[in-house]
Amino acid sequence: MACQACRLTFRVRYSETDQLGTFYNSRVLEWFELGRSEMMRDWGVPYAEMEHRGAFLPLIEAHVVYRGRASYDDLLVMSTLAERAGKASLRFSYEIVHAEAEAAKGGQKGGGVATGWTVHAITDGGGRPIRCPTWLGEILDQHATQTEGTQ
Amino acid sequence: MACQACRLTFRVRYSETDQLGTFYNSRVLEWFELGRSEMMRDWGVPYAEMEHRGAFLPLIEAHVVYRGRASYDDLLVMSTLAERAGKASLRFSYEIVHAEAEAAKGGQKGGGVATGWTVHAITDGGGRPIRCPTWLGEILDQHATQTEGTQ
Amino acid sequence: MACQACRLTFRVRYSETDQLGTFYNSRVLEWFELGRSEMMRDWGVPYAEMEHRGAFLPLIEAHVVYRGRASYDDLLVMSTLAERAGKASLRFSYEIVHAEAEAAKGGQKGGGVATGWTVHAITDGGGRPIRCPTWLGEILDQHATQTEGTQ
Amino acid sequence: MACQACRLTFRVRYSETDQLGTFYNSRVLEWFELGRSEMMRDWGVPYAEMEHRGAFLPLIEAHVVYRGRASYDDLLVMSTLAERAGKASLRFSYEIVHAEAEAAKGGQKGGGVATGWTVHAITDGGGRPIRCPTWLGEILDQHATQTEGTQ
Repeated sequence: MACQACRLTFRVRYSETDQLGTFYNSRVLEWFELGRSEMMRDWGVPYAEMEHRGAFLPLIEAHVVYRGRASYDDLLVMSTLAERAGKASLRFSYEIVHAEAEAAKGGQKGGGVATGWTVHAITDGGGRPIRCPTWLGEILDQHATQTEGTQ
Repeated sequence: MACQACRLTFRVRYSETDQLGTFYNSRVLEWFELGRSEMMRDWGVPYAEMEHRGAFLPLIEAHVVYRGRASYDDLLVMSTLAERAGKASLRFSYEIVHAEAEAAKGGQKGGGVATGWTVHAITDGGGRPIRCPTWLGEILDQHATQTEGTQ
Repeated sequence: MACQACRLTFRVRYSETDQLGTFYNSRVLEWFELGRSEMMRDWGVPYAEMEHRGAFLPLIEAHVVYRGRASYDDLLVMSTLAERAGKASLRFSYEIVHAEAEAAKGGQKGGGVATGWTVHAITDGGGRPIRCPTWLGEILDQHATQTEGTQ
Repeated sequence: MACQACRLTFRVRYSETDQLGTFYNSRVLEWFELGRSEMMRDWGVPYAEMEHRGAFLPLIEAHVVYRGRASYDDLLVMSTLAERAGKASLRFSYEIVHAEAEAAKGGQKGGGVATGWTVHAITDGGGRPIRCPTWLGEILDQHATQTEGTQ
């Protein structure tokens, strides 16, 4: 019944900004990818290894709420959570804040940049849904948030 | 009370694919941008002109449902709709399908790639919310879908 | 001994700008891809079809000269040329200018945005060099610039 | 007369791959940006601070040689060097290799991914060339490679 948020610190790249002076909106989905990649590495089975074992996690749904601006080189902190969503899908949720604001508030969240979630199917390399492999199920039982009666 | 969907045909770029052989998930938000850009051009006030007049439309929320694969060079068709969402925001909704599938079905939609929507604030260049300018309100009254009592 | 430049007109996407208000530098390599994609389509064998036939053209070298700014929604024109470069490689060269400037000068180039070239190996899907397939050789003999004694 | 190469370790993002299973070619220019960003941070004046002081370094030329494949999540190491290039420009050169290959060879480079260089003008925020500010000149005198009689 573990419920661990994986934290990742990263900087906004110049290539991720747009002419409004903040990050371009689609970059958040790329950052979410970093969050779940690091989470799976923490699990001991990096996503590259999952694909190698024949389990792919293509997105089937994504949602982003934009909460504030972030400029080139700003240091951001992302918290990622995983939960099972039905028999053959996974749900990750994410929160991205300014590292500075988070520190200033003594752990209380602030300086919000974006929050959101993604839902992923479990498929083979050709995109066909497969049953959740035993090894993946065991990882999820150990690490993913268990939210009973939801989703 | 006009209700026009703006249609845009475009091809998947090689740079938009990923190692799974389909488009990378964040590209859909970039394609949505193309859809609303073309819609505003149809309105007679391209988005660049809007920004020039001091009205910016930063995203505050985005939602994507992934419905199928699309490979490099595939010809896709996007339909975009706009609607007012409260006093100081706008909502665009999008549907992207394979051009081939759409044609084969005689106009009936199929070969789905992605659907979704984005909600945009109306702000000045610094990101501060502003009242919807009169000229923009008139455009929306003419072109945006009027969905009473919804949101 | 044909020597045709393929012309492509396209607009700068918002996602391609950066906080300096012009296009981000790496986008030019993505635009170059569009130029050669359209050129191959003109040849009657789109690049997707080439890959389908087992001939891949990975970049082995790229060069870009940045000549001027271009903003969101600016209409640009790219001219692309192909030439053989040795037995197992191809070279494309590109020039991107503002459509407006080009028109104003009656066909004389101006309003330069970027120029450059890319060199591509001919390989199989695994990246291993292969001999130029007969069908590709014939296309190049017909369409690529023949620059004797160079490269 | 210091001559320090700045080293940066990073992973290939899924969003940076393409359907050929390696990184998409334009990503290398984005990685080069990371290399020089970290170098400037090492200098004590991060690039964001340079822009804040009114000195911008837009690219005027870029060159990339592609030396090998790299897959999603591969750990890469980039070495960056800076040198003055004339009175009003800077040149950075870069080498990206697989971390694993580099380690295996006891510091000898191998497992090459890409090398290249970029030349940057020194301009104000509007893109107009300016004289190299004194503080930037001093940094370069201290940290950039001095290659006499070259370029």
